[in-house]
Amino acid sequence: MRLLPKLGRKLRRWKKFKKSPLLRKLDLLHERCANSIQLEKHRSKIIFSISARKRAFLETSQDYISRLQAECTDNTDTSEPLSCQTRKQFLYNGTFHEAVGKVLLTAQLFAMMPVRGVTAKHPSSLNFSWLHVRTCCCLLFIASTLIDLSLTIYKVLDGPMSFNNIKPIIFRSCILLVCVTALNLARKWPELMMHWHDIEQDLPQYRTQKEKWRMAHTIHMVMLVGMMLSFAEHLLSMISAINYASVCNVTDDPIKNFFMLTNDEIFFIMDYSTPLALWGKLQNVYSTFIWNYMDVFVMIVSVGLAAKFRQLNDNLLKFKGLHMPPSYWSERRIQYRNICSLCGKMDNAISLITMVSFSNNLYFICVQLLRSLNQMPSVAHAVYFYFSLIFLIGRTLAVSLYAASVHDESRYTLRYLRCVPKDSWCSETKRFAEEITSDLVALSGMKFFHLTRKLVLSVAGTIVTYELVLIQFHEDQNLWDCDQSNYS
Amino acid sequence: MRLLPKLGRKLRRWKKFKKSPLLRKLDLLHERCANSIQLEKHRSKIIFSISARKRAFLETSQDYISRLQAECTDNTDTSEPLSCQTRKQFLYNGTFHEAVGKVLLTAQLFAMMPVRGVTAKHPSSLNFSWLHVRTCCCLLFIASTLIDLSLTIYKVLDGPMSFNNIKPIIFRSCILLVCVTALNLARKWPELMMHWHDIEQDLPQYRTQKEKWRMAHTIHMVMLVGMMLSFAEHLLSMISAINYASVCNVTDDPIKNFFMLTNDEIFFIMDYSTPLALWGKLQNVYSTFIWNYMDVFVMIVSVGLAAKFRQLNDNLLKFKGLHMPPSYWSERRIQYRNICSLCGKMDNAISLITMVSFSNNLYFICVQLLRSLNQMPSVAHAVYFYFSLIFLIGRTLAVSLYAASVHDESRYTLRYLRCVPKDSWCSETKRFAEEITSDLVALSGMKFFHLTRKLVLSVAGTIVTYELVLIQFHEDQNLWDCDQSNYS
Amino acid sequence: MRLLPKLGRKLRRWKKFKKSPLLRKLDLLHERCANSIQLEKHRSKIIFSISARKRAFLETSQDYISRLQAECTDNTDTSEPLSCQTRKQFLYNGTFHEAVGKVLLTAQLFAMMPVRGVTAKHPSSLNFSWLHVRTCCCLLFIASTLIDLSLTIYKVLDGPMSFNNIKPIIFRSCILLVCVTALNLARKWPELMMHWHDIEQDLPQYRTQKEKWRMAHTIHMVMLVGMMLSFAEHLLSMISAINYASVCNVTDDPIKNFFMLTNDEIFFIMDYSTPLALWGKLQNVYSTFIWNYMDVFVMIVSVGLAAKFRQLNDNLLKFKGLHMPPSYWSERRIQYRNICSLCGKMDNAISLITMVSFSNNLYFICVQLLRSLNQMPSVAHAVYFYFSLIFLIGRTLAVSLYAASVHDESRYTLRYLRCVPKDSWCSETKRFAEEITSDLVALSGMKFFHLTRKLVLSVAGTIVTYELVLIQFHEDQNLWDCDQSNYS
Amino acid sequence: MRLLPKLGRKLRRWKKFKKSPLLRKLDLLHERCANSIQLEKHRSKIIFSISARKRAFLETSQDYISRLQAECTDNTDTSEPLSCQTRKQFLYNGTFHEAVGKVLLTAQLFAMMPVRGVTAKHPSSLNFSWLHVRTCCCLLFIASTLIDLSLTIYKVLDGPMSFNNIKPIIFRSCILLVCVTALNLARKWPELMMHWHDIEQDLPQYRTQKEKWRMAHTIHMVMLVGMMLSFAEHLLSMISAINYASVCNVTDDPIKNFFMLTNDEIFFIMDYSTPLALWGKLQNVYSTFIWNYMDVFVMIVSVGLAAKFRQLNDNLLKFKGLHMPPSYWSERRIQYRNICSLCGKMDNAISLITMVSFSNNLYFICVQLLRSLNQMPSVAHAVYFYFSLIFLIGRTLAVSLYAASVHDESRYTLRYLRCVPKDSWCSETKRFAEEITSDLVALSGMKFFHLTRKLVLSVAGTIVTYELVLIQFHEDQNLWDCDQSNYS
Repeated sequence: MRLLPKLGRKLRRWKKFKKSPLLRKLDLLHERCANSIQLEKHRSKIIFSISARKRAFLETSQDYISRLQAECTDNTDTSEPLSCQTRKQFLYNGTFHEAVGKVLLTAQLFAMMPVRGVTAKHPSSLNFSWLHVRTCCCLLFIASTLIDLSLTIYKVLDGPMSFNNIKPIIFRSCILLVCVTALNLARKWPELMMHWHDIEQDLPQYRTQKEKWRMAHTIHMVMLVGMMLSFAEHLLSMISAINYASVCNVTDDPIKNFFMLTNDEIFFIMDYSTPLALWGKLQNVYSTFIWNYMDVFVMIVSVGLAAKFRQLNDNLLKFKGLHMPPSYWSERRIQYRNICSLCGKMDNAISLITMVSFSNNLYFICVQLLRSLNQMPSVAHAVYFYFSLIFLIGRTLAVSLYAASVHDESRYTLRYLRCVPKDSWCSETKRFAEEITSDLVALSGMKFFHLTRKLVLSVAGTIVTYELVLIQFHEDQNLWDCDQSNYS
Repeated sequence: MRLLPKLGRKLRRWKKFKKSPLLRKLDLLHERCANSIQLEKHRSKIIFSISARKRAFLETSQDYISRLQAECTDNTDTSEPLSCQTRKQFLYNGTFHEAVGKVLLTAQLFAMMPVRGVTAKHPSSLNFSWLHVRTCCCLLFIASTLIDLSLTIYKVLDGPMSFNNIKPIIFRSCILLVCVTALNLARKWPELMMHWHDIEQDLPQYRTQKEKWRMAHTIHMVMLVGMMLSFAEHLLSMISAINYASVCNVTDDPIKNFFMLTNDEIFFIMDYSTPLALWGKLQNVYSTFIWNYMDVFVMIVSVGLAAKFRQLNDNLLKFKGLHMPPSYWSERRIQYRNICSLCGKMDNAISLITMVSFSNNLYFICVQLLRSLNQMPSVAHAVYFYFSLIFLIGRTLAVSLYAASVHDESRYTLRYLRCVPKDSWCSETKRFAEEITSDLVALSGMKFFHLTRKLVLSVAGTIVTYELVLIQFHEDQNLWDCDQSNYS
Repeated sequence: MRLLPKLGRKLRRWKKFKKSPLLRKLDLLHERCANSIQLEKHRSKIIFSISARKRAFLETSQDYISRLQAECTDNTDTSEPLSCQTRKQFLYNGTFHEAVGKVLLTAQLFAMMPVRGVTAKHPSSLNFSWLHVRTCCCLLFIASTLIDLSLTIYKVLDGPMSFNNIKPIIFRSCILLVCVTALNLARKWPELMMHWHDIEQDLPQYRTQKEKWRMAHTIHMVMLVGMMLSFAEHLLSMISAINYASVCNVTDDPIKNFFMLTNDEIFFIMDYSTPLALWGKLQNVYSTFIWNYMDVFVMIVSVGLAAKFRQLNDNLLKFKGLHMPPSYWSERRIQYRNICSLCGKMDNAISLITMVSFSNNLYFICVQLLRSLNQMPSVAHAVYFYFSLIFLIGRTLAVSLYAASVHDESRYTLRYLRCVPKDSWCSETKRFAEEITSDLVALSGMKFFHLTRKLVLSVAGTIVTYELVLIQFHEDQNLWDCDQSNYS
Repeated sequence: MRLLPKLGRKLRRWKKFKKSPLLRKLDLLHERCANSIQLEKHRSKIIFSISARKRAFLETSQDYISRLQAECTDNTDTSEPLSCQTRKQFLYNGTFHEAVGKVLLTAQLFAMMPVRGVTAKHPSSLNFSWLHVRTCCCLLFIASTLIDLSLTIYKVLDGPMSFNNIKPIIFRSCILLVCVTALNLARKWPELMMHWHDIEQDLPQYRTQKEKWRMAHTIHMVMLVGMMLSFAEHLLSMISAINYASVCNVTDDPIKNFFMLTNDEIFFIMDYSTPLALWGKLQNVYSTFIWNYMDVFVMIVSVGLAAKFRQLNDNLLKFKGLHMPPSYWSERRIQYRNICSLCGKMDNAISLITMVSFSNNLYFICVQLLRSLNQMPSVAHAVYFYFSLIFLIGRTLAVSLYAASVHDESRYTLRYLRCVPKDSWCSETKRFAEEITSDLVALSGMKFFHLTRKLVLSVAGTIVTYELVLIQFHEDQNLWDCDQSNYS
């Protein structure tokens, strides 16, 4: 019943999609045909020359013709690639909004990004209101976190402060900051997605559904793997905490022990009660999700932006080394410029999340490495600890590398410009090349640092240096005693 | 009585102002009108096409026409925006000299920047003379500081030297250095302000009083907030010192105790006497003001320079993506170049102050962080200490970010050049883009470092590293004992 | 018997080589001749002018003519340079494949790079198969290393972990990683060499055999010196171990003592047996070779790439400051671009090896420097230790400098472009100059860092910083006791 | 008697000098005259317009005419500036060879730079031979230093090694390295000076003797101040050593005590004898001179190179903002290129000295700062120590800043190119601007680092970091005991 109008809508969009690029590419194709005929002539003329370099050129022209033919086949008859795709792949038209829908839906289950219409087919369905249930949930969670944070601060300030002890404060402050930023982002999200959609529509489109599906596939994989590992880490954390609670048994009730250990900031000022314990547990689960989600979110946006650059680069690759008219380069330059401005807009919107994610990861890795110097109280601890540490380092590395891929892809365009033949080198290509050379397109942490591959090395170097300094600082202190909770 | 000639002068200036930009923009407007007619034609011609990209262009042209109309309205009939402005805003013509007048006047109350005519309407009224009362006050204060510094050095060298103990020497040396630099700057100030004024007059002018008033508003806010916080910090420092003096009571007289604590360098070699105590207190108040003022001054100059770049950028934004003649770009390029050269001149004039401000803040943050490791002797101390530390870090961050905004605004111009349409891309736009790309326009600390957002990260990194190293160095030493004065 | 067909093949290739550049340079030479006549006229006209700068120009033209004549002589009559070369040099045609043949053959003796046809004259003879004996040997060694690594991890995890103790794990992991990477590289090797060969054939060829032989000579020297020093280091290590074994004599049998010391990870869980000891020794020798070979390999590839840039630069030097047609510059630009893309391909293929080599060297230098703080138990130890340390530092420096030479040579081209006369400055020269300026052509460690001369300074700085931090960390601990084996 | 031929030679050179620039500038002047007439017309035409920007332009043209007139006066009638100059200034024709003559002569007194003809008027008189007395002296000193170094190594290796103890080895190794490098430089010096002279002759010449004398004056001042301070430091060192020797009196003879203290490496293996003591003292004096001279030498070369860039910039300043023909810019570009290549040649020749100078200063500052943590045994020590430390830091800063001035001056040229009017902006100006932008012209330490102002900050940061790390390392150790000699 409900499927029919949906399918109808999809069909209409599909038709529109099939028409629009055809229309858009008519003039371009015309040029190409003229070009191809010219090339064919050229080919027959030079067919008898035998110099190595000439042969290379010949291969290029042959290659070009075959590429052109392949493309024509794609254009006129897309039935073949369609038939061999799964139904799921068929449904994707390759927009970021579509790919990111389920990811945002999952986030909304955990009181983040309260925007309606994330699974709708078109970003125009997106809207944000302060009165939605989702928004209220989100505000409720923020209030709850605020209370939790206050309790934590009260408990931590009671004892001596150190690099290690302020971990729960840092953790909960980051969660709070990210939640508020995400709420703010949700307000801007409909507009951002519309902007993204407009730019996407203007880009050279992929021919096959497989290529269209690629970005969505990567995004889903990132989300899935990230959440799986996060879930595994949380389970191990619980097992380890249960184990630990049985050692430092304050009371006779093991469940009570467990909750008093994992939510010590609550029961530091209040007596134990099951509702409070449940609230603490819920808060814990939500916090852990958000803590992982902020990294996943930065990765997903990076994947989306990098995919748009790749889409442009794939088109440039098709015509690499060929004689293209200035209008081709002008069009590509404007598309490149659009993606750059999209990058800038997204960066402005999420750079606070990026910064929190990065500094948070850096701090946690340092604290974990510091703890690694101590003897583990049990095997369960050791397993949890090393899994958690490796997961943390892996996640940080993944965020860095995915974010750096935006910059890498944006620089990649330069390679195709380097191969423009002498005769086709015009004012437009020059301007294009100069703009790519002089601009730094990358996600950033509040513009204080840009996420490039060089940053990964600096971060690694910083961690090692901190570690060496920390080693000396906390040499003899045992961090695994019953008084201190390490389960935040 | 006195208001009438003032108002008359203002009216004349207002008339002049209203005429001069009109004259200056006649030829430019002419071009625009021609452009607009052409666009209107273009619009009617393309009104039936429906491609997405064409529509975007259409919106641009519609947008352009509405912008042009809005502008024409502004030009021919400014009565509306004028009537809705407050009297204060009406008075501003948007020059830096005018905006900075009261800030400099305040500084002169504290024996700095002894130049006459700072509140005059035109920078030509500025003049410096060695024989003015203000200059003499300034020289007197420098002499007084010199004596105080000598006494401090004598006292400090008497005991063992350490990173923490030399704080009073560093503090007073910086005050002295800044005072002498400010005196030197005062000599050059009239010339600098004339240069600034000339460049300002040549820039594209704002239409509304509100826009003109913006820079002055920011400058006044920076000054006000900076001075308020500085005053609060000084009060807290006094309360904390009174509290401290009552604990380490050397004599029975609490006032005497207080002065002997806060000016220990004086009473280390001299007996207690009320005039000396008052001199010490005065010296203390003045020093504290200057210590804060040097940061505020760097911020204010930064705000001024960034506002000039923004003025140019706002004009470029108006015509973003439109077909402009080469003469437009040539004019903008020369204006950009002028602001750059102004930046260079201001940087040469104040870079010593910038450097002192930065290194001083860096050193004080390190010392304060070092002290934070010790237990606080009382609650008053703790409140003062944390307020002081947060104020210090906030001030340093504010200086860094305001100073970095000059660089950010200067790079922002590039965005508008990236949107120049293909047909309007000419030798002038290219030269403009290349110059922005290759120049580094920013305030600097003696050219050793440039104040950009990247620097903030380095500074933060350095502070953390120093802190970690310092932690180990002073681990067990108690810095809060009665023998040592921490009230410099 | 076998020499004849080889010689015949060589002769044919030689002929082909002699013909192809002639053909390729006919049009170029034609231009040059026209140029030369024009210059001669110019010379007679300006012969009487006496200004200093004119004279300089005159010298240039004279120089040009003499260079042209020298070149003509080279072209028409190459018998003279041929006759004065040794037979060995005669055999080289200057390709990288030929130069690197014996180096790869040596590597294959130690179970690396299992690709067939490395000593063949043409890279088309290269092929890789999983079923070759060499591949099987390689896989066998990888399996053997894996077992050894497991034993090592088991032994190390048994005791407390420290920066120093994990050395055997790091060592064996690196060996394993490099072996697997080399196996993977072997699969891509035939294709890479074909690409390299194609680009080489297109470059301006050297005239004399001596110049052709130069690259091969450098490569062989690097290999020889590297292996000699590595052999000497291994011998010293054995002498030192024998000496050490006699001090910490566990059993009466000195040979058994030696093996139990050098392969303590095997005999930690198994009883002593001669076959196991021999396996351990073999594993040891192979590991040591591979540990040295990875550095040598990076050096050799760097020498090869730098030589290709030099080949281009040598051609540009010949025509430095002369009036060359745009076609000349276009050709050179494409050749430059080809070498750049070759660099990129080689970098992609070997960057993991580069990274392992660098981080490994960095870690080992730090560990060795750390050990240098302890007293040496004997003179044999001291000699071995300091030889080993100096060898390590020298090797790291050599890798850095050879790798940096690729970047240096790629930038060198810019100098010749700076000397292009005003009249010959065209769109092509400009594009060439801009491309060199904006590209960073260098080997890299997984793109995280680029191997330039600046890196050497950073690495040196890092080592010194680490050393100073390490000094404090392990101050009192004696690392030369019998319980710990330092012979990995 | 001897003065007459000298004066005759000078007169002839003077005539030649006066003629050659006139000849060289005839065509340029012609253009200027045409320009001037045109400007005069332009001026009369625009004399009535009153816009602010027009007025600015008018001022420019008036300024230009006055500049041109001033220049004409200079050209036709130089008697006035000549008459008011001292005789000494009259003698200079502004070449680097002439300016550096006495500096090299002084160096030769201390067995360095053994090249003949340094005080000759023309660099063609320079020559180097292995058989000169100077060369023999130099070789003798190298041999003597080698012996001294061996003795030092023997003594140091006898005790435990530390950062502080190896100071004498570092000191003597640096001296030896610099001596050998200077000997090698002496061989290349005649050629370098001829190259320098050729480039100098081609540059736009100064009109007045005062301007010509400026570079020589700076060089002499640097040499004088450097040597004076070095002499003062050596005297203080001796006084402090005498004072110290009287405390740790080994024997009764105070002179013997002094020599046994300052040359402890000699008397560690040999008995005391006066000739040995004198040799040690001589060696000491020479070493101290060379240790200071290497810094002074780097400064002097920097002053020379920066002066050449300034000479070019002064010419560009003269015609700043005016309409100049492309030939003018082409000429300037080639001159700029020549100075760049001169920089490169000089850098290649002296970069080892630069590197030794820098690393040596860095090490010595660290060692001195480390010693500053200990209590001084006497006032003489304290005075010497602080003078020495401040001198060391000042010298390092001076070397850095003078060397950085080469880079600063080379970038300064860009400012004049930014002011080229729209109509005069041509291919040549563009090429000039791009070349300056993309090249890094600076002295370097073996190309590992470039001497720019940014380096100073890094060096300062490194010193502070090292200091903080060193503080912890040597906290309790007393470095001022009688067993250790600190007088190397």
